[in-house]
Amino acid sequence: MPDLTPDEFRSLGHLFVDAVADARAGIERHPVRDAVAPGTVRARFAREAGEDPEPLAAFPSLVEAVTGDADTRWQHPGFHAFFPANASLTSLLGELLSGGAGAQGMLWSTSPACTEVEQAVTDQLARALGLDETFTHDGGGGGSIQDSASSAALVALTAALHRAAPDPATGWRARGVTGAERVYVTAETHSSLAKAVRVAGLGAGGLRSVACSPGTRAMDPAALAAMLADDVAAGLVPVLVCATVGTTSTGASDPVAEVVAAAAPHGAWVHVDAAWAGVAALCPEHRWVLGGVNPAPDAGGVDSFCTDAHKWLLTAFDASLLWVRDATALPAALSITPPYLRDAHSDSGAVVDFRDWQVPLGRRFRALKLWAVLHGQGLSGLRAHLRGHVALAAELAERVRAHDGLELACDPVLSLVCLRASAGDAATTALLERANGDGRVLLTGTEVAGHPVVRVAFGGVATGPEHLEILWDVLSA
Amino acid sequence: MPDLTPDEFRSLGHLFVDAVADARAGIERHPVRDAVAPGTVRARFAREAGEDPEPLAAFPSLVEAVTGDADTRWQHPGFHAFFPANASLTSLLGELLSGGAGAQGMLWSTSPACTEVEQAVTDQLARALGLDETFTHDGGGGGSIQDSASSAALVALTAALHRAAPDPATGWRARGVTGAERVYVTAETHSSLAKAVRVAGLGAGGLRSVACSPGTRAMDPAALAAMLADDVAAGLVPVLVCATVGTTSTGASDPVAEVVAAAAPHGAWVHVDAAWAGVAALCPEHRWVLGGVNPAPDAGGVDSFCTDAHKWLLTAFDASLLWVRDATALPAALSITPPYLRDAHSDSGAVVDFRDWQVPLGRRFRALKLWAVLHGQGLSGLRAHLRGHVALAAELAERVRAHDGLELACDPVLSLVCLRASAGDAATTALLERANGDGRVLLTGTEVAGHPVVRVAFGGVATGPEHLEILWDVLSA
Repeated sequence: MPDLTPDEFRSLGHLFVDAVADARAGIERHPVRDAVAPGTVRARFAREAGEDPEPLAAFPSLVEAVTGDADTRWQHPGFHAFFPANASLTSLLGELLSGGAGAQGMLWSTSPACTEVEQAVTDQLARALGLDETFTHDGGGGGSIQDSASSAALVALTAALHRAAPDPATGWRARGVTGAERVYVTAETHSSLAKAVRVAGLGAGGLRSVACSPGTRAMDPAALAAMLADDVAAGLVPVLVCATVGTTSTGASDPVAEVVAAAAPHGAWVHVDAAWAGVAALCPEHRWVLGGVNPAPDAGGVDSFCTDAHKWLLTAFDASLLWVRDATALPAALSITPPYLRDAHSDSGAVVDFRDWQVPLGRRFRALKLWAVLHGQGLSGLRAHLRGHVALAAELAERVRAHDGLELACDPVLSLVCLRASAGDAATTALLERANGDGRVLLTGTEVAGHPVVRVAFGGVATGPEHLEILWDVLSA
Repeated sequence: MPDLTPDEFRSLGHLFVDAVADARAGIERHPVRDAVAPGTVRARFAREAGEDPEPLAAFPSLVEAVTGDADTRWQHPGFHAFFPANASLTSLLGELLSGGAGAQGMLWSTSPACTEVEQAVTDQLARALGLDETFTHDGGGGGSIQDSASSAALVALTAALHRAAPDPATGWRARGVTGAERVYVTAETHSSLAKAVRVAGLGAGGLRSVACSPGTRAMDPAALAAMLADDVAAGLVPVLVCATVGTTSTGASDPVAEVVAAAAPHGAWVHVDAAWAGVAALCPEHRWVLGGVNPAPDAGGVDSFCTDAHKWLLTAFDASLLWVRDATALPAALSITPPYLRDAHSDSGAVVDFRDWQVPLGRRFRALKLWAVLHGQGLSGLRAHLRGHVALAAELAERVRAHDGLELACDPVLSLVCLRASAGDAATTALLERANGDGRVLLTGTEVAGHPVVRVAFGGVATGPEHLEILWDVLSA
C-alpha cells in the first residue's frame, strides 16, 4: 500500500522526533520572528506537486530549508506576544498516540475511548479547577474540547438562541433568528464574540456593548441591568451575556456574580470567556478567577465556562475547554441525525455524542494530549508552571515601577503585564518596535483608553527567569 | 520548567513512536470494534486528577489498559464504515513536525510559514486535481484547510449571506439574516448543510429540499430552477445552492453544471460538497467528479469546492480542503480586527490572514501533514492508493452481482458499494448485524428509498485485496 510500513514509520519516526528535539533545543539561536517579505516561502515551492515519492528522511531538512528563515517561533521562550500557545513536549507525546489511533469521535460508538476519556479528563479538570459539580458529566453538565474559544462562544450562543426561543422544540430551529435577539459584551470582550454573533446571523446590530464601570475595563452590572430592562421593554430578546475573566488586552475581569444576577431575571445565558486566565484556578491563590462562576445559594450560576488548555496549560493547540451545566443544551440546539448517523447507543440516551456539542461532525482524540499532560506533570507540575509565570510578571512589574522611563498601564494580572513609556504614546510605539527589532523577544501592542500599550504575556513552555533578564535587557535599554 | 527537556522528549518520543508502530502492526489481532458498555472507559479513571507527575514512559501502556478493549479502530483495515479516515503514517510524520513547531497561523505575521505553505500546497493540489486556476491563490481565489466539510459549508454559507445582502458593506454584517434567505439542497445532501443553515440563524425553514430527478438520487436542475423562480417571486432570497459530488449514503452526484446554470440568474452561491469523492479527480479516469465545477465559456463556475484530505487522501484528520474562486469572499464576511490583532502586513493587503477564512481565530500548521503526504507519496502514490480502493469496490460489486443472496442497491461509485440481501429488508438488517458481529469488519447502514442498505466504503490506509477476501468471507457466509 502507498504508505509507510510500521517498521518504516518506526525508524523515520525516530528521526522526526530527533528533529523536533533538536529544533526545540536550538530555538534560541534564532530570532523569535524572522524579518521576511510576503511571498518568500511560497516562492520556494514548485508550481506543480511532484509525481514521484521523495525520501521522507529528507523531509525535516526540506521543511527547515523552506521555512527555517521565514517564520514566527511560538515556542521560543522569548515569545511574549498575544497569549503564548504552549505546545509542551509532554502534550506532543499524547498527540502522537492520538494520531496513531486515528480515531474519529463524532459519536460515542465511533470511538468510546475518545468520548469517555474526554468526559473523564474534563470532569477531573473541572474538579481540579474548583468548578461546581454541575459542570461535570457526572453532575448533569459536562466538558468538551473545542478547537478554540471562538468556536466555544459560537456553540454557546447557538444553545442560548435555542433556549431563548418561545418554543424551543420548534422556535429557533424551525424559524431562525428574528432580529430581536441581543448579545451583551463590553468593548473589552474578545472579538470572537462579535464574530460568533455575526456567524449566528444576528448581525452587528445584535451585539450590545455594555459600559464598563468608571475607571475600569470591567462590565458595569448596573449598566447591564439597565440595558437589559430597556431592551426587553423595547421588545428585544436578551439571549446571552458574555462575562470575560482576563481580557485579551489587559487581563481585566467582569464581575461575574453581578452579571449573573443582572441576567437571571431575563433568562439570558451567561457565558464566561476565561480563555487565558481560567486555568489559573488550579492554584488556590488564583481561584478568584472563578468568582461568580459557580452557583451560589439563592442565585443562579453561569451556563457555560471556557478556558484554553492550549494557551497556558501546557497542551498543544488545539484544546479549548468548554463546560456547560446542562448536558442537553448543546445537543438540543445542534443535533441532526440522518439515517447514516443513526446509532442504537445514541438512541438509548445513555451516551454522549460529542458531534452534537460542536459545529464540525468529525473530531480528533484531543483528550489524549490533555491526559498526557495531567499524567506527566500532575496537578503539582501544572501549578508550578503557572506560578512560575505569575512570578515573572510580578518581578517585571516591580522593575517597571522602579524604572524612570517605563510605567505600568495597569496592574499586572496573573502573567500579563501592560506597560508603556513614561515619555508618551510615540515613545511607547517606538519601544514596541525597538523591542521586537532586537530579535530575542516578541511582544504585541494594544490600546488602553485610546493610547498604545505594550503587552508582555508570559506563558511559553520554556520561558523561565533567564528570559525575564533578556526581556528586561531589551525593555530597559 | 515543568515539561520534558528536549533530550527527555527524544528518548520518550522514540518509545511513543514504537508504541504507534506496534499498535498499527498488530491492529488485526483486535476486532474492528470492541463490544463495550457505555461507561466502561470512564469508570477506569480516578475521580480526581493526580497531584504528582507519573512516568511518561508508562503512558502508552496505561492508555492501552484503559482503552485497549473498548474502542472502535478507525485504522483497522477492516473498517469500511462511514467513510474511513485514513490517518497515514506518512501524514503523522508531518503532524509531528507541526506539533514541534507549535505555530499558530491566525495571521500571516504570526506564522508566515503556516500561511504560505498552506497556500502553496493547496495551489499545488488544485492543479493536480484539475481545478481551474481561479481556485488558486495565484489566480485570485485560494484554498484553505478547514477542520471539516461541516465547517467549510458554514463559512461558505457565511460568505454567501454576505454577498447576497443588498449592500454587502453593511447589509448582512450589520443587520443579520432577515428570514427571507434560502439554501437549496436535496434529501441526499449531507446533514452538515442543515446544521450550517441552523447555526447561521436561518432555521430549518431556510433550508429548501429540491427534488431529485426521477429514479435518481441527484438534484433535478429543472426542479431547482422552478423552486428558485417561485421563491424569488415570493420575495425570498436564494443565497446558496449546495451540489454534492458523491453523497454519503450512496455516492450519487448532483449535475453541477446544470445546478450552476439554474443558480446563476439569481446570483446564488454554488458550493460543491465533494468531501469524500473530490480527491478522486487526481486520477484522469475519475476526473468526471469535477464536471461543472470549473468555469465554462459563457457560464459561471461554482463559488466554492470542498474535499477532505482526511477521508481518502492519506492525511490524518483534520484536513478538509476548501477552495473559493474569490479570495476576498470569506474575509469580507468574517474579518473583525480589534487593536490587539492589528498588523502592518494585514493592513498592507499583501498577505492572507487565514483567521478570516474560518470561524476559529487560532489555527494549527495543518499544511505540514499534507505536504508530508505529497512529498512522501507523490501524486503517483496517491493515485495508486485511490485506484487500489476503486478496484476493490469493482471486484466486490462483481461478486455481489454473481451471488444469489446479495444484490447491489445501486451501481458502485468509486470506492463505495451499497448492497442488500435479496431476501428483503429484514435479511439486509440481519446481514449488517451479522457482519459487524464477526469482528473482522465494520460496516454502516443507510436507507435508499426507505429501505435498509449496507454500505461498504473502502478507504482505509492499510486496506488491500486481502481485506476484500475477509469481507467477502463475512458477507457471503
